[in-house]
Amino acid sequence: MALIGVLGGMGPLATVDFMRRVVELTHARCDQEHLPMIVANLARTPDRRRAILGGDIDPLPALLAGIDLLNRCAVDAIAIPCNTVHHWYPQMRAHSTAPIVHIGLASVAALPAGIRQVAVLATRGTLVSGFYQAALQARGIEPVVPPAAVQRDIDASIDFVKAGDIGEGASRLGRALATLKRRGVAVAIMACTEIPIAALPLGDTSMTLIDSTQELARAVVAFAAERGWVRAA
Amino acid sequence: MALIGVLGGMGPLATVDFMRRVVELTHARCDQEHLPMIVANLARTPDRRRAILGGDIDPLPALLAGIDLLNRCAVDAIAIPCNTVHHWYPQMRAHSTAPIVHIGLASVAALPAGIRQVAVLATRGTLVSGFYQAALQARGIEPVVPPAAVQRDIDASIDFVKAGDIGEGASRLGRALATLKRRGVAVAIMACTEIPIAALPLGDTSMTLIDSTQELARAVVAFAAERGWVRAA
Repeated sequence: MALIGVLGGMGPLATVDFMRRVVELTHARCDQEHLPMIVANLARTPDRRRAILGGDIDPLPALLAGIDLLNRCAVDAIAIPCNTVHHWYPQMRAHSTAPIVHIGLASVAALPAGIRQVAVLATRGTLVSGFYQAALQARGIEPVVPPAAVQRDIDASIDFVKAGDIGEGASRLGRALATLKRRGVAVAIMACTEIPIAALPLGDTSMTLIDSTQELARAVVAFAAERGWVRAA
Repeated sequence: MALIGVLGGMGPLATVDFMRRVVELTHARCDQEHLPMIVANLARTPDRRRAILGGDIDPLPALLAGIDLLNRCAVDAIAIPCNTVHHWYPQMRAHSTAPIVHIGLASVAALPAGIRQVAVLATRGTLVSGFYQAALQARGIEPVVPPAAVQRDIDASIDFVKAGDIGEGASRLGRALATLKRRGVAVAIMACTEIPIAALPLGDTSMTLIDSTQELARAVVAFAAERGWVRAA
């Protein structure tokens, strides 16, 4: 049976956002033409950002338990709509029977050709992990890590979305984007799945924003469409 | 571990809508204060409406397989954001270790006191099954089953949402509600989880509409809050 596993709950609203995009990217005329998914919405997984920055509870056992749960359900592939968790991608991939679609590689692959510089809007954990910078450099693109004041607004924006305050999340993100734009940034990756939720109320930001949630959803629907399980919209 | 099971995918967008409401009804300041859920988004389950109306593939084996999958994940309770499936509630309940929150009983319990007559906006399968009429009559409320022309618009509205066309779903639902209102209906239960999705773009309909998706989400968050797993918003 065609079945996609989703390791979710990090955060819960980002998982809902990801699922909605998979549904919208699938060209289905009735329920039965949609993509079956098992979603482990494991909200209680220990904080990933703090663990990468040092000293906090290691989330890896909880992540591997989630991967095990999805594999026991016989999923064909796994998607994780959380960028920070991809710090542990090598360990999760080695542990999993089903392949895991990499949100960072999907997002960097979505950048149009000819771009020289891309800002990475992410948690401090993702930035310290460095997998976005590595993937961009592998494409010959210079990664731009936001300056400290901008990063504080990005951190706050993510936390507000996780706490359900989209309005304040949007306001902080808007200020961060305006500062980056004044500094000449034209292209950025929303490399945290809370950021597209904060970006939605902003409307047109006159920047090229690559949306990691959307790119992960596209990669999953493409995986399923290649196997004839769904038709992509 | 606190864990809610969701038997979903019927339809997929309604499941996403249900999950979003659970997240929004939970008062959480960070990911870890949200409610862990396992969501079996089993979109390929055979058509429930046609099975009740006669002659089509029996969906019960697929439903019980979904219930088994959730019980194997050791869920504490199960929610099913699809009203029609509750035709098989007795069989699923007898089969499941975890209790199953009944969407119809939660919705009828949400009706304010003193109401005499309530229209049931549902699939033909749900109406033939009759569990909403029985629950309303048990509260001394007269159920109103829409006349044939209105039911055709309700059926079409549900099908448009399942196919991703929210605009046309809203247009058909709006026409159905306008006709019911002219016939003196003041209160209705949106007793199909596609209908609240179609109702959203309509804005104020000047009718009292009970939303079965919202009432199921409220019942789940209340179940978890009573056990100290989350704080209700």
